[in-house]
Amino acid sequence: MTYKELSKDYLENYGLSIGDTIKVHKEDISYTGILLDRPEDADDGYLVIKLSSGYNIGVAIDNTTAELIEKGDKPKIGYDEEEIPTDPSKQNISIVSTGGTVSSVIDYRTGAVHPKFTASDLVKANPELLDYANYNVKALYNILSENMKPEYWVKAAEEIASDISEGADGVVIAHGTDTMHYTAAALSFMLKTPVPIIITGAQRSSDRPSSDANINLIDSVIAAKSDIAEVCVCMHGSLNDEYTYLHRGTKVRKMHTSRRDTFRSINAQPIAKIQNKKINVNPEYNYVKRGENELEVNTAIEEKVGFIKSFPGISEEFIEYHIDKGYKGIVIEGTGLGHVPDNLIESFKRAADEKIPVVMTSQCLYGRVNMNVYSTGREIIDAGVISGMDMTPETAYVKLCWALGQSDDYDEVKEIMQNNIAGEFSQKSSIKDFLN
Amino acid sequence: MTYKELSKDYLENYGLSIGDTIKVHKEDISYTGILLDRPEDADDGYLVIKLSSGYNIGVAIDNTTAELIEKGDKPKIGYDEEEIPTDPSKQNISIVSTGGTVSSVIDYRTGAVHPKFTASDLVKANPELLDYANYNVKALYNILSENMKPEYWVKAAEEIASDISEGADGVVIAHGTDTMHYTAAALSFMLKTPVPIIITGAQRSSDRPSSDANINLIDSVIAAKSDIAEVCVCMHGSLNDEYTYLHRGTKVRKMHTSRRDTFRSINAQPIAKIQNKKINVNPEYNYVKRGENELEVNTAIEEKVGFIKSFPGISEEFIEYHIDKGYKGIVIEGTGLGHVPDNLIESFKRAADEKIPVVMTSQCLYGRVNMNVYSTGREIIDAGVISGMDMTPETAYVKLCWALGQSDDYDEVKEIMQNNIAGEFSQKSSIKDFLN
Repeated sequence: MTYKELSKDYLENYGLSIGDTIKVHKEDISYTGILLDRPEDADDGYLVIKLSSGYNIGVAIDNTTAELIEKGDKPKIGYDEEEIPTDPSKQNISIVSTGGTVSSVIDYRTGAVHPKFTASDLVKANPELLDYANYNVKALYNILSENMKPEYWVKAAEEIASDISEGADGVVIAHGTDTMHYTAAALSFMLKTPVPIIITGAQRSSDRPSSDANINLIDSVIAAKSDIAEVCVCMHGSLNDEYTYLHRGTKVRKMHTSRRDTFRSINAQPIAKIQNKKINVNPEYNYVKRGENELEVNTAIEEKVGFIKSFPGISEEFIEYHIDKGYKGIVIEGTGLGHVPDNLIESFKRAADEKIPVVMTSQCLYGRVNMNVYSTGREIIDAGVISGMDMTPETAYVKLCWALGQSDDYDEVKEIMQNNIAGEFSQKSSIKDFLN
Repeated sequence: MTYKELSKDYLENYGLSIGDTIKVHKEDISYTGILLDRPEDADDGYLVIKLSSGYNIGVAIDNTTAELIEKGDKPKIGYDEEEIPTDPSKQNISIVSTGGTVSSVIDYRTGAVHPKFTASDLVKANPELLDYANYNVKALYNILSENMKPEYWVKAAEEIASDISEGADGVVIAHGTDTMHYTAAALSFMLKTPVPIIITGAQRSSDRPSSDANINLIDSVIAAKSDIAEVCVCMHGSLNDEYTYLHRGTKVRKMHTSRRDTFRSINAQPIAKIQNKKINVNPEYNYVKRGENELEVNTAIEEKVGFIKSFPGISEEFIEYHIDKGYKGIVIEGTGLGHVPDNLIESFKRAADEKIPVVMTSQCLYGRVNMNVYSTGREIIDAGVISGMDMTPETAYVKLCWALGQSDDYDEVKEIMQNNIAGEFSQKSSIKDFLN
């Protein structure tokens, strides 16, 4: 076992082994569950217990006593990466861990959460995953998603492509939630895929009693086995563990700082709902089917792209700054139908003259950019600004990075921005697509 | 009447006068309604008709024929500003027009919308307003709201304060919707008010058949007569004309580019619902009552405030740029609970060293900033960044402009930012406050 020193002594003292059902008492509280293996690099002095709810909890052994409730089998929950059992009748799912809350543990000294688990730890901590598939697990990097950078999107896309070309029937990516939708959009543009690529995460860390990692992971594996060959986000659909939603990677956004059901399809419906381990595909959804596309990898990306929110009092100097600094493109988060104060319009003209594409989106988030309604919008169009249609500002930003990676030519980039590459534009709006 | 040349000849030809119920035929379409007076500066060749739905429509007279259905009274809908009738038994409401769609007409040559109506035109175009109150109408400026600037907030606040000190029982501000919530937040911080200050607008221009201006205006007048002495936004609550919501000025945001029910309370419930001309106040809402506050005007504001959205790949140079350029404060729209990539943290420290307050908000919009959960958040706190709590990023931006107007002292500004000045922080979160 990986428990060491204090924890190891403690477990030996009470005659407890990994896989046993144990009860730990601490003052007025007691926890009953299966003793799990600890992730490597974990701090000493803590045990991880899987509660009957499926949640894992980290317990500091300080001032606790423990008792054995029932001896358990070690093999299913304690193995090294090479030892993960395989079953030839099951599909092969690749799990790629990038860090984030889904693969985090609490630092009990500060109360803060650090990314520490690896993909292999994820399977260890969620042994029921083995009922669904065979796994090839890989820790790509281990960072909180606010530190994701475009270069990591490239690395992730290449890794996923390599897994798919080696025969993965589906890929699950464990990712922090903060920028999950940016990564989902990036992978959507970078990869044409014959199999599902499912990004998932958690709003509570995997070893917390209220972690949502367990259901999100299992439902992601179910999605990865499905016939939906798109890049999707799979996350809680409600405040409890009833169901998850599968969102198209280019149409999803984190909408709440802390709720489990924070991810929402914007200007679109979810592709599917996963409930009681069954996937129910939205019959109206026109998605790419398994095997319909050949694998195609196109990771070229331009990182020097500005992303600017418009507001009353914004100075045109900020646009000029981006042009002066050699930015290759700019996404504006305008107001309403896609407007900005008129003092910015001359700078847009300068950008167009210097062949720097400027794309307009709306900070309303919901609805469609339409610069034909008001006089300001028409002036913005005349200044060469490209409509972001009903893309989220975040998807538009990622798409412009990618489009500028595909071509140096201003007109070609404009054309790419206006083509529907990965379902990022909805063909028509539905009244159901607001605040749903 | 203000109809001229072509339109005047046309009306004389058919023997029609303002106030008459007329029918205009154009190919397969005919419109029946009351002939309204045209706003000044209107293009020649158009008639404005009030349909029985309450909507006003502009009809180009080209290729049309017309007939008189019923002679009408001119006085109620055709008067100059000084002629607006008054009734001593009614409350006195001040209507201040700033432009925007609510006071716009369509330019029939381009199809675009220009702000053209004045406050007086608003009453002319909505004669039923006279049933509710006496009006003092004033056109403050006539701009689309994307061109609002902090200096206009000041002008509006001073004008409103002057109306209140002259005895207005309530104030209604006609405003464009794009930046309505920014103005609502600004007036909330600048004015302590003994009477309601209600901001309203429209998503369809006043002379379009589907305009929502009529119900928004009338319900705003009803709100302005109520005992809710706060700055509020009154706008459609659904896709039809059933009801409007009254939102607290610091807790509201435009959430859809084109829907009429675009304005939503964020991390809060609406204060009241207005249905069938009756106001139903949310019994859980703790609002400021009429007469509770004395009028207090505090319009000092700092315009040199940055408002920066964080994203994967953002360069710390943006933060450095704002410091170098002498910005007095910066609001960050971070990810998740209030995070940014770690390359920005050193620049936050520099800002703190130079006594430039940096405020963290979340691009999730819903939920509360909490920088204590993750290691990145703790580092951001250590770099001196102030939590924006559950304020919208837009309200936090406006508040920082205002706080920096109130004091030059870094610690005082920090304290103002952490005090609840105008209901901008919710004391507790409710699960009802998500996507509602």
